Amino acid sequence: MSSPKTIRRLEVVSPVPADINIANSVAPLHISEIAESLGLKPEHYDFYGKYKAKVLLSALDELEVSENGFYVVVGGITPTPLGEGKSTTTVGISQALGSFLDKKVVTCLRQPSQGPTFGIKGGAAGGGYSQVIPMDEFNLHLTGDIHAITAANNLLAAAIDTRIFHEASQSDKALFNRLCPANKEGKRSFADVMFRRLKKLGIPKTNPDDLTPEEVTRFARLDIDPDSITWRRVMDINDRFLRKITIGQGPEEKGMMRETGFDISVASEIMAVLALTTSLADMRERLGRMVIGNSKSGEPIMADDLGIGGALTVLMKDAIHPTLMQTLEGTPVLVHAGPFANIAHGNSSIVADNLALKLVGKGGFVVTEAGFGADIGTEKFMNIKCRYSGLTPQCAVIVATVRALKMHGGGPEVVAGKPLDHAYLNENVALVEAGCVNLARHISNTKMYGVKVVVAINKFATDSEAEMNAVRTAALASGAFDAVVCTHHAHGGKGAVDLGIAVQKACESNTQPLKFLYPLNVSIKEKIEAIAISYGAAGVEYSEQAEKQIEVYSKQGFSDLPICMAKTQYSFSHNPSQKGAPEGFVLPVRDVRASIGAGFIYPIVGSMSTMPGLPTRPCFFDIDVDFSTGKVLGLS
Amino acid sequence: MSSPKTIRRLEVVSPVPADINIANSVAPLHISEIAESLGLKPEHYDFYGKYKAKVLLSALDELEVSENGFYVVVGGITPTPLGEGKSTTTVGISQALGSFLDKKVVTCLRQPSQGPTFGIKGGAAGGGYSQVIPMDEFNLHLTGDIHAITAANNLLAAAIDTRIFHEASQSDKALFNRLCPANKEGKRSFADVMFRRLKKLGIPKTNPDDLTPEEVTRFARLDIDPDSITWRRVMDINDRFLRKITIGQGPEEKGMMRETGFDISVASEIMAVLALTTSLADMRERLGRMVIGNSKSGEPIMADDLGIGGALTVLMKDAIHPTLMQTLEGTPVLVHAGPFANIAHGNSSIVADNLALKLVGKGGFVVTEAGFGADIGTEKFMNIKCRYSGLTPQCAVIVATVRALKMHGGGPEVVAGKPLDHAYLNENVALVEAGCVNLARHISNTKMYGVKVVVAINKFATDSEAEMNAVRTAALASGAFDAVVCTHHAHGGKGAVDLGIAVQKACESNTQPLKFLYPLNVSIKEKIEAIAISYGAAGVEYSEQAEKQIEVYSKQGFSDLPICMAKTQYSFSHNPSQKGAPEGFVLPVRDVRASIGAGFIYPIVGSMSTMPGLPTRPCFFDIDVDFSTGKVLGLS
Repeated sequence: MSSPKTIRRLEVVSPVPADINIANSVAPLHISEIAESLGLKPEHYDFYGKYKAKVLLSALDELEVSENGFYVVVGGITPTPLGEGKSTTTVGISQALGSFLDKKVVTCLRQPSQGPTFGIKGGAAGGGYSQVIPMDEFNLHLTGDIHAITAANNLLAAAIDTRIFHEASQSDKALFNRLCPANKEGKRSFADVMFRRLKKLGIPKTNPDDLTPEEVTRFARLDIDPDSITWRRVMDINDRFLRKITIGQGPEEKGMMRETGFDISVASEIMAVLALTTSLADMRERLGRMVIGNSKSGEPIMADDLGIGGALTVLMKDAIHPTLMQTLEGTPVLVHAGPFANIAHGNSSIVADNLALKLVGKGGFVVTEAGFGADIGTEKFMNIKCRYSGLTPQCAVIVATVRALKMHGGGPEVVAGKPLDHAYLNENVALVEAGCVNLARHISNTKMYGVKVVVAINKFATDSEAEMNAVRTAALASGAFDAVVCTHHAHGGKGAVDLGIAVQKACESNTQPLKFLYPLNVSIKEKIEAIAISYGAAGVEYSEQAEKQIEVYSKQGFSDLPICMAKTQYSFSHNPSQKGAPEGFVLPVRDVRASIGAGFIYPIVGSMSTMPGLPTRPCFFDIDVDFSTGKVLGLS
Repeated sequence: MSSPKTIRRLEVVSPVPADINIANSVAPLHISEIAESLGLKPEHYDFYGKYKAKVLLSALDELEVSENGFYVVVGGITPTPLGEGKSTTTVGISQALGSFLDKKVVTCLRQPSQGPTFGIKGGAAGGGYSQVIPMDEFNLHLTGDIHAITAANNLLAAAIDTRIFHEASQSDKALFNRLCPANKEGKRSFADVMFRRLKKLGIPKTNPDDLTPEEVTRFARLDIDPDSITWRRVMDINDRFLRKITIGQGPEEKGMMRETGFDISVASEIMAVLALTTSLADMRERLGRMVIGNSKSGEPIMADDLGIGGALTVLMKDAIHPTLMQTLEGTPVLVHAGPFANIAHGNSSIVADNLALKLVGKGGFVVTEAGFGADIGTEKFMNIKCRYSGLTPQCAVIVATVRALKMHGGGPEVVAGKPLDHAYLNENVALVEAGCVNLARHISNTKMYGVKVVVAINKFATDSEAEMNAVRTAALASGAFDAVVCTHHAHGGKGAVDLGIAVQKACESNTQPLKFLYPLNVSIKEKIEAIAISYGAAGVEYSEQAEKQIEVYSKQGFSDLPICMAKTQYSFSHNPSQKGAPEGFVLPVRDVRASIGAGFIYPIVGSMSTMPGLPTRPCFFDIDVDFSTGKVLGLS
């Protein structure tokens, strides 16, 4: 049970004030109180200011004997561009369980990118009376993990171009002599990291002087094919002008120009590594085997070939510890990792979930959010994340709104920034009923993993009783364990008590093991096709480029990895305008890429933006500091 | 007096082990003990892990009544490329004063750039038995200040290009309507930040609807001249391939390509702002008035014209608090800001010095390092930093080595990475004596500010008694208050006790006010010439570009700012090969630029690299984590 002294009762106001105003109206507890409520010893966490602490993975050593709590993943139906309140519901359930139902609970959330905070979207700490606080600290810098990722990602990028540059102007022997310089006594030695490359090359020697000239060449010359480089630079800013750039135009770079670009930092493979790693030693291995491109003869070139895996690990060694924060009602939150939900798997980290499950222990709850709709977020949570972690969820929540279901039933387009059509503001049960095909498919897909499905009907002020009943009826008919109306945005945990009870019952009644959608040891295409079928597709169509890449990765020995589909969240299909539950379409795979270090192959379906832009009037116009209180103004 | 419980006696080993091994051999105290030894109350600092804390500027409010301690700046003679141990001496003096002479002392150091840590140079925490610990935390991430600078710098860069992009495709009216959108009731309003631009334009209106069409155009259209943009992007990585790039080559950017480049983050004007600001409110003003380029009609465009000054302040609001760390002997260190010493002023921050002077109080000591040689570092410390802070130093230390003096006396070239010539390893008093002209000029230049000069003769194992005596004699003859041999690298504070006593006597005997080299209210050229004369120049030669820029800045009203010379540190002149004390040369000013927000004009003398590169075998090959202890290996 939660330590009662951390519980905070909210005095809610109607209409619901702006998120930042609610967040600023509550004085957060010192984070040591939250840590104590979880039974954490002071040696197992490090403060970062008064309201954040990094929980050290060393805490796991002592907790190893404790039994895991229940594991709940929150997905959603196919959303409108306005979002259906998945983060808010994740926080709301947790507040209900911890603050009203007397359960030990930890919420596991992703760290948001800082870019959109200053662009269009605003923050990502939940909303209304279901938020993580302090909201500004959650949205800005946090404990520096994304900055560490940016640094590591770009150090690797600089190493790649500089290595090509130095290889271009040096003989094999000169290169080797620089890589393994003689010390004062004239003795050469390999750096530890070099033994990884030697091993890969099958050279079992330990003394540089013993290498044959042919081995010297193979060892020292990576011979990277510039056109094959997939590693891009990153920045945690919405900077569209960096999407495509030419580098190396300075006179000192001697004409070695190359087209490349920047992604937003959360799209870095290192973010996906952070989310999927299980320990510092495992992270070291994953960072070292990230593939940045190929040699001219087609061999994959890894970070460790560049001698940089250890340095990347050092840059990431603090980032591996999740950050403890709190909800508005004083329940604990672990914020960690924030991989993209298209080109990566869109979930918080394995280490955070692991830690949380041990901290809440038997009978406790860990509630974590999966990105995008359940077709992508929950699917990847199960087939990628749980496969790597070995953890088994008992319950999957699917967040549904009357608004989105009306859209799936044939309602007019919903566009961010434009007023909603009256169809969405007035009762229309028929539209809702028609749209429930979308919910139904998400329910049946999710049930296949062996979890109980609870539908959270996230109520808006304009929703009618009859509309919500229609959702509930459809959900139960589609095999949901339960479907519950919730009002945590307006009422905090109190508004999600029924939902919390349903989740608890679902967890307690589930005894099934986790079932995957596909085994790993089939071909890349068979795995892609299994996922496509779950979308409702009749088949898959591969571009020439996709065929080529599948062949390359299979030849390079990477075909046993799980698949991470990069697909729009706005439809089960590749076409965002196909609402409801489309069927019979052919899913076009435009390209296939790989995050070998993180551990997945990602087919590209449609076009993915990995670098957002700023609008004419970005959010930053409203953001400032109140010098009298030190508080941040204008965050949304 | 220092709290005796934080004092740590070192057991020194000979020969001196590698820096990281010394650093790792000492268990640091919990930073709360260091904070307590300074009399800091817990509400005035925030932990960042166990060994770092941010000291909140709010601490100053309570300390306002307390008297300042003595203020000591550590400069150096013109160095060899190997460095003469200025940081080490800064730490050494502090360890002597705090650990052996029972004084309250705070060392104020710059935060090092992370880039060189992985490149050639290694870390910057001092060396041998005079270091700041934990060394890995000092060199990597620290408390995220440089990451915050990178984020703020690049958000502004993205805002510039995006604004040009949106202005290109929209009519004045459409632009205005987007900048001041109507709310649900159809009412428009200005964001707070927009009143800054309105004021600048002389439009005293508060209701957007009241603007005339001509005012709408002037307000909404910044009309930035792309060729005038001086704001570059930054990254804290040695990435030479970003020195010159073309951005905007993506199809969505519609051909709006532009040549630009990245500097290393510590070269950002925001770093200089951080170092020169005096409060959060002052930082808000400085960030808002940073000039990024001109409009097509030649008006300076500032960050606040883009509406972004508040957001930049929010990104920097934690960075303004200095980070408390400790030396090997348990004396307190404030690490803050790390501006370049060429295109910026190369000192730690005003707020850190301010805080430190109050914390040590009357009779205590604040020891801070100035970048490069005293011709640049101490000059800028006095004429820029002390002018803005209003603080008065009592003593300036000049670090000299027999090695560097031999070079100035005509010894062979010293090249990093190559073995030293035998002239540097064997006694040669004549060479030393000849080189003392360099020391003499640094002494007389520094004395002009009204401070007492103490020469620290940083002893190497190969230096002879006679050589050191020669330095001492020359120093005293040139007007130094004292000249003292010190061995803090080999012996820690114990090796700098005599130096500490000399510094104490110098401080206690000084009663002079600070004198500046030039007043602010003369022309830019007169100020440049005053500095050039201090170098020994006979005159100054301006390129056409420099003439043009001086005219532009004078016309724009910026001629009252202090001057920050961007000159090589390897000679008094612009030519790094001119050692000793050159005279009669004409100083060529190639260009003149400005950091209006930070508050200085910087003439460019010679070529300045603002983005280092990586060598064939960067330091990162040696860097890794020891998984059994969690310690960082291979940092140097």
